[in-house]
Amino acid sequence: MIQIPRGTQDILPGTVEKWQWIEQTAKEVCRTYNYSEIRTPIFEHTELFQRGVGDTTDIVQKEMYTFEDRGGRSLTLRPEGTASVVRSYVENKMYGDPNQPVKLFYTGPMFRYERPQAGRFRQFVQFGVEAIGSEDPAIDAEVISIVMTIFKKLGLKNIQLVINSLGDKESRLAHREALIQHFKPRIGEFCADCQNRLDKNPLRILDCKKDRDHELMKTAPSILDYLTEPSRKFFDKVQFYLKELGIEFIVDPTLVRGLDYYHHTAFEVMSNAEGFGAITTLCGGGRYNGLVQDLGGPEMPGIGFAFSIERLLQALEAEKVELSVERGLDCFLVSLGEEAKDYSVKLLQELRHAGIRADKDYQDRKMKAQLKQADRLGARFAAILGEDELKKQVVVLKQMETGEQREVPIDRLVSELKEI
Amino acid sequence: MIQIPRGTQDILPGTVEKWQWIEQTAKEVCRTYNYSEIRTPIFEHTELFQRGVGDTTDIVQKEMYTFEDRGGRSLTLRPEGTASVVRSYVENKMYGDPNQPVKLFYTGPMFRYERPQAGRFRQFVQFGVEAIGSEDPAIDAEVISIVMTIFKKLGLKNIQLVINSLGDKESRLAHREALIQHFKPRIGEFCADCQNRLDKNPLRILDCKKDRDHELMKTAPSILDYLTEPSRKFFDKVQFYLKELGIEFIVDPTLVRGLDYYHHTAFEVMSNAEGFGAITTLCGGGRYNGLVQDLGGPEMPGIGFAFSIERLLQALEAEKVELSVERGLDCFLVSLGEEAKDYSVKLLQELRHAGIRADKDYQDRKMKAQLKQADRLGARFAAILGEDELKKQVVVLKQMETGEQREVPIDRLVSELKEI
Repeated sequence: MIQIPRGTQDILPGTVEKWQWIEQTAKEVCRTYNYSEIRTPIFEHTELFQRGVGDTTDIVQKEMYTFEDRGGRSLTLRPEGTASVVRSYVENKMYGDPNQPVKLFYTGPMFRYERPQAGRFRQFVQFGVEAIGSEDPAIDAEVISIVMTIFKKLGLKNIQLVINSLGDKESRLAHREALIQHFKPRIGEFCADCQNRLDKNPLRILDCKKDRDHELMKTAPSILDYLTEPSRKFFDKVQFYLKELGIEFIVDPTLVRGLDYYHHTAFEVMSNAEGFGAITTLCGGGRYNGLVQDLGGPEMPGIGFAFSIERLLQALEAEKVELSVERGLDCFLVSLGEEAKDYSVKLLQELRHAGIRADKDYQDRKMKAQLKQADRLGARFAAILGEDELKKQVVVLKQMETGEQREVPIDRLVSELKEI
Repeated sequence: MIQIPRGTQDILPGTVEKWQWIEQTAKEVCRTYNYSEIRTPIFEHTELFQRGVGDTTDIVQKEMYTFEDRGGRSLTLRPEGTASVVRSYVENKMYGDPNQPVKLFYTGPMFRYERPQAGRFRQFVQFGVEAIGSEDPAIDAEVISIVMTIFKKLGLKNIQLVINSLGDKESRLAHREALIQHFKPRIGEFCADCQNRLDKNPLRILDCKKDRDHELMKTAPSILDYLTEPSRKFFDKVQFYLKELGIEFIVDPTLVRGLDYYHHTAFEVMSNAEGFGAITTLCGGGRYNGLVQDLGGPEMPGIGFAFSIERLLQALEAEKVELSVERGLDCFLVSLGEEAKDYSVKLLQELRHAGIRADKDYQDRKMKAQLKQADRLGARFAAILGEDELKKQVVVLKQMETGEQREVPIDRLVSELKEI
């Protein structure tokens, strides 16, 4: 038997309805916020992620699915969505659209070669939003409001928004110097990755999982003490708008996103649901002024977020949220005898074409077994058609829950079911 | 600038709505027919397609995106959907489900390394349906009815269903012998591929694009003359049901599907729309008794189809079908002055949370430019909020089409817009 590749999963009927419901909810929120869908390819030229995600990141260094196609091009299965969306923004000259900012959302599979764990897959699905072309702090609040609205609509209660500012270039440069000064004297006590990061990207040290309990971590200089005046004002305004919108948050100066392109606002939505173990990040996002230019476009600021549906499902489960998932048939046709069986094929199509969710037996089952199947499929009604009924041009309509049954003329079946 | 990989495309706002509408329509039809969604991974072990699609097919020999992951496994981006769905049916033991046949649909990207042409991409999206576990010819008619219903609901008029039977094993063996006898004496006049096919799979010769005008093609023995009695009866019954369902069709004994696993029913839906050039296949499908067993499961018959959304869009365009695509805003908030601007952030969220599709300016535009943007975004209403209005706690509600405007109390805006 050939098995599914390690770190991937099939999403089967019975579970897929939860996915549909999450996507439907997220799309509906995006619609009211005037964000439109964009679809980019599953793979891109490898260079896009090297430049767009950052050469020094774990993603690019260790986790990408990279291969050569038959024409010798180096392609990579996308590990995240932002680089592709920005590539598309530049390539399709969306910066020329008078309706800035361009507001987009996407959903689809992403790929990272990691050790599979509970809730962590090599193929996982992200839902993300990008607003490109505005530097108004109100757009930061809008983007954050989208994810908070989605999570609340889905029924999550134990979530916590955490925000930080990474400042502008000047702020980051000053902070960077301070970090180097702080860590350099004792960098030998840190892991090899951190030692590497000291000169390349010392901010990343704060993100290290191995060294997070080192005492220097707690006393590290805070970016918030190095913000320039405009950066400070920008961050204040974002917080003002969040308060206006009634969105609670805490400021955490150690919040650093793992990607190279963030500036100003960085945020995460955490779940602290019981039964989910430690506090876990459900959604990460931030402002990426600079990325559009890095990918060959004009100077255009952007902000976005992404969350994984796999992890969101875990959080919903941990909170025991009842998903409002629609299942079950409207009507199951029970047919007995060759003639009735043949006739039911046509009747079934009539029901379906009238928008009624209907099915019939295709295994030549006996009456009792057909009724059992109707029950298993969650049918609200069974319509029984035997030789006698066919002659009289009626069906016996049985309400499955109550067992109540009555005769209905065949040509009235659709309208009867429509009424109920 | 980094470009999109050759043979792939971005689907952007303005176009993506057509895709959403097609998928929505197809899913809605599947819902009434009681088919549930399944999602399988983007890549599978390469062996799955070698066994499931067939080693001698062009797809497997020339067109697959195959690569090794970091663990040395040979993986392949899925070139079609059926093999993956059947792999999942076997691996998840769906054959043990009492509700046979298991009825599934899928939609998602597929990958074939072909020369890109108009409407042919290296990454393309297929929508497909599979019913696994029943040998009732009524299920063949049901599956065909699904695709015909989808195409008609979308508004296609110039479509033609073509069906054929490839018979059971015995029929195919007899026909195979006849084909070898027919072609062998003059096989030297055929292309290298056909010469190869003569012993391996002579049926495939009938599918050859290079040799399709060779005189032996027209006189080749027809499978229909070699059907066994049960195969004949099965095919008759499928035709009987199609007639019952009011689905027109023609029988074409030269119709051969390019994949190895088909038995009995094979079908295609063709478009003969003017402006589409030659007659083109929009959808292909058929019965694959044997595939479940080939992939390590019990003997379970199946039938399905798939169509590419890219090609379907071409057909819709050729027929000039107006797509019922919803676009445009309900309300654009025009805000003037710092205070009104800040206030509008909150008001905007109220509108959106009430399900109203709304937006505002984020570029500090002047009033005239904001109204222009409202117009460009297709807003039905603009709600104007300046300093005076803020003091009076009203907005000026302007109907964009007529230009008519009137004052509305701010706390009545949501309910006013909901009413209209």
